[in-house]
Amino acid sequence: MSKITPLSGFPELLPAQRNAEVAIVEQLRRVFELHGYNSIETRAVEPLDRLLSKGEIDNEVYVLRRLQADAEAADAGIGLHYDLTVPFARYVLENAGKLEFPFRRHQIQKAWRGERPQEGRFREFTQADIDVVSRDELPFHYDVEVARVMSQALAALPLPGLRMQVNNRKLIEGFYRGLGINDPGAVMRVVDKLDKLPADALLGQMAQIGLSAAQAHSCLALAQIRASDSTFVEAVRDLGVSHDLLDVGLAELAAVLEGCRDFSNERFTIAADLRIARGLDYYTGTVFETVMTGFESLGSVCSGGRYDALATDGTTTYPGVGVSFGVSRALVPLFQRDLLTSTRSVPSVVLVALVDDTSRQASDALAQRLRARGIPAEVAATAQKYGRQIRYAERRGIPFVWFPGDDESSNTVRDIRSGDQVEAHPDQWVPPSADLRPQVVRA
Amino acid sequence: MSKITPLSGFPELLPAQRNAEVAIVEQLRRVFELHGYNSIETRAVEPLDRLLSKGEIDNEVYVLRRLQADAEAADAGIGLHYDLTVPFARYVLENAGKLEFPFRRHQIQKAWRGERPQEGRFREFTQADIDVVSRDELPFHYDVEVARVMSQALAALPLPGLRMQVNNRKLIEGFYRGLGINDPGAVMRVVDKLDKLPADALLGQMAQIGLSAAQAHSCLALAQIRASDSTFVEAVRDLGVSHDLLDVGLAELAAVLEGCRDFSNERFTIAADLRIARGLDYYTGTVFETVMTGFESLGSVCSGGRYDALATDGTTTYPGVGVSFGVSRALVPLFQRDLLTSTRSVPSVVLVALVDDTSRQASDALAQRLRARGIPAEVAATAQKYGRQIRYAERRGIPFVWFPGDDESSNTVRDIRSGDQVEAHPDQWVPPSADLRPQVVRA
Repeated sequence: MSKITPLSGFPELLPAQRNAEVAIVEQLRRVFELHGYNSIETRAVEPLDRLLSKGEIDNEVYVLRRLQADAEAADAGIGLHYDLTVPFARYVLENAGKLEFPFRRHQIQKAWRGERPQEGRFREFTQADIDVVSRDELPFHYDVEVARVMSQALAALPLPGLRMQVNNRKLIEGFYRGLGINDPGAVMRVVDKLDKLPADALLGQMAQIGLSAAQAHSCLALAQIRASDSTFVEAVRDLGVSHDLLDVGLAELAAVLEGCRDFSNERFTIAADLRIARGLDYYTGTVFETVMTGFESLGSVCSGGRYDALATDGTTTYPGVGVSFGVSRALVPLFQRDLLTSTRSVPSVVLVALVDDTSRQASDALAQRLRARGIPAEVAATAQKYGRQIRYAERRGIPFVWFPGDDESSNTVRDIRSGDQVEAHPDQWVPPSADLRPQVVRA
Repeated sequence: MSKITPLSGFPELLPAQRNAEVAIVEQLRRVFELHGYNSIETRAVEPLDRLLSKGEIDNEVYVLRRLQADAEAADAGIGLHYDLTVPFARYVLENAGKLEFPFRRHQIQKAWRGERPQEGRFREFTQADIDVVSRDELPFHYDVEVARVMSQALAALPLPGLRMQVNNRKLIEGFYRGLGINDPGAVMRVVDKLDKLPADALLGQMAQIGLSAAQAHSCLALAQIRASDSTFVEAVRDLGVSHDLLDVGLAELAAVLEGCRDFSNERFTIAADLRIARGLDYYTGTVFETVMTGFESLGSVCSGGRYDALATDGTTTYPGVGVSFGVSRALVPLFQRDLLTSTRSVPSVVLVALVDDTSRQASDALAQRLRARGIPAEVAATAQKYGRQIRYAERRGIPFVWFPGDDESSNTVRDIRSGDQVEAHPDQWVPPSADLRPQVVRA
């Protein structure tokens, strides 16, 4: 038998950490549902050819085979999904006749990649995606909507600061075309290295792909524009380029920023960042990236954008716009540094003490009366001295210990954090609502 | 590209069905947490040797390999878990120093088996498990507790009738030993076929393994005892066998039945069924099985029991008791027959209508005021005639359509099921609480 050890890249949480993750996922789900995004789940596997059609991540797919299958049938031809977009696109095509469009969905599920584990990159990880997809056409205002929904969700999370950076592919492409550049994709691939290479090197690479010095300087200047409001429009205009597609891109980006402005707070900001391009052959308009303050090396923890062809069956095209929050990518590094946990390792608000070894049934009945009113409760494991039963609660973070009385009117309950002990009736006492569920704690 | 088709054995749900599944899983989780069972999740994969150590299901394991891994490293030596008990046992051993015992956990996750798909048997399926595990010793009253918790959870589910059948391995073994049988396991393996073979055949097989006719008849008589209360004790006593272990088993089984009696209702019953043995080398006391009325061919939808060694590291043993509800096994056949769904395919309670093409912002603002008070709302996709906007809501099952007024006091909201339309204030109107979330619907 293999030694019991963690598997690199497959993070697991202790109960108190798990309670923080559950609370955060519930918060996300709640915001998604308030905006009409319905839960779906897709199977964990897809046919290999569908997983590999994007071309870029062949070596990261986990292929499945049945252990004892015949040699020729050994390979089931299926692999684990590496994101939630590929399966969602397939789900839309498979069920198009049964779905109502525009179709808003959220999907909070695990995905798997066989890549080398490193911080923030796991072999198994949870993502929380929202997308709106429609048939044939999806008006631009849905770009603003998904940005607003995810902004509202992120702005409320108990995490280090999040900075969402938005750009628009039409803006970039229109700008390049306005400069007379015929292959915008080639320039984007160079500009994409802005974080890694000095400006001179980028200018050199742009010259190599045929840009004039003036064109190259303009492209670099565009990529360096950042603004938390629509002043970026002015900054772009000052570069003296004009093109219809540029106008559309500028208007769209300004509308997204404007739409999300209400959600900015001390922990969440959104800004135009004209350097952002993302998945080069994929997105066609709005694009999003998000960095977590102090954890920039993780890369983007929340990304997405507009794709004019999320899915197509050859006859009908399904455009979409969506954003994906990397639950594991953002949270696991915080758990690993002990920067995130919750107030307790059990759901119980109350530990009902045992008076003696024969009183289990009475304590069970008391606990059941609390549960009947929605108060999670457990009964002490053994009838030790009360001091020990209190320590039992302390070790689990249970805030209240209930001491059964001789009769209904002599029950007492102690808040073991303050030591305050009061008389309480099992059909009437309620804990402070903040204590009803484990609370997220940030160090 | 492979044709888009469902994969046999990997069921997926449409949005309205998914909402029913979510509601049912939430109901389970709620009951588990009221009793102090904390959520955990384990990674989807385990080392192969750990998955195969039970010996019985070798050919059902899905092994993972990275698509482009080197030939010698092709096999990662890991496979997908086929239940939640093996990973839980490993989690307990791995984290024993950081867990508080007795440790109550619930775990609601997918598992995978490469077996031939058939009704109620899927290659990917969701299970909802509860277990209590402790170090060295776990008192019997936890058997009663997990039975009570799962009974309370099952009794509230909107499913066809569920019949939980309980037995006790000590009872069977004690009875057999009291009869002078030295290899109780061999007899259990024969009795296990009671549903499939006629009594004569079983008696014949018992003779073959060396039982006298009297012994065989007693074993058969024991297996045929069923009772919904402790009258089974009398019935067993009448067979005239005595043994200390039998006494313990009888008392334990009676205590489990007694403890769960309050939860019996028209949809859920619990009874002693002395035929039940389950996993022959695994359980050591209480054992559970559950059949769904009208779906007996699915087999057990909720099973479990006591294992005196859930996990062991050679030095310390961790006894446990648990029950596992097969969420997919019970629900998917109902979905497939259109016997189960929910009232709507979106979370939205309200569709805010669009007065005209220029009023999207005003309708968005109204929706946002509803959301701020916890009312899921979406805005109509296009400013069609109101009749069409109402049909948009109808197709999704959204119960209310909000018609923006010229000013705050002239808003109205229509319950499109009854046609009733009333004046409403966006900061005050509340829907009936039953409408706040999609409701489960059973055909």
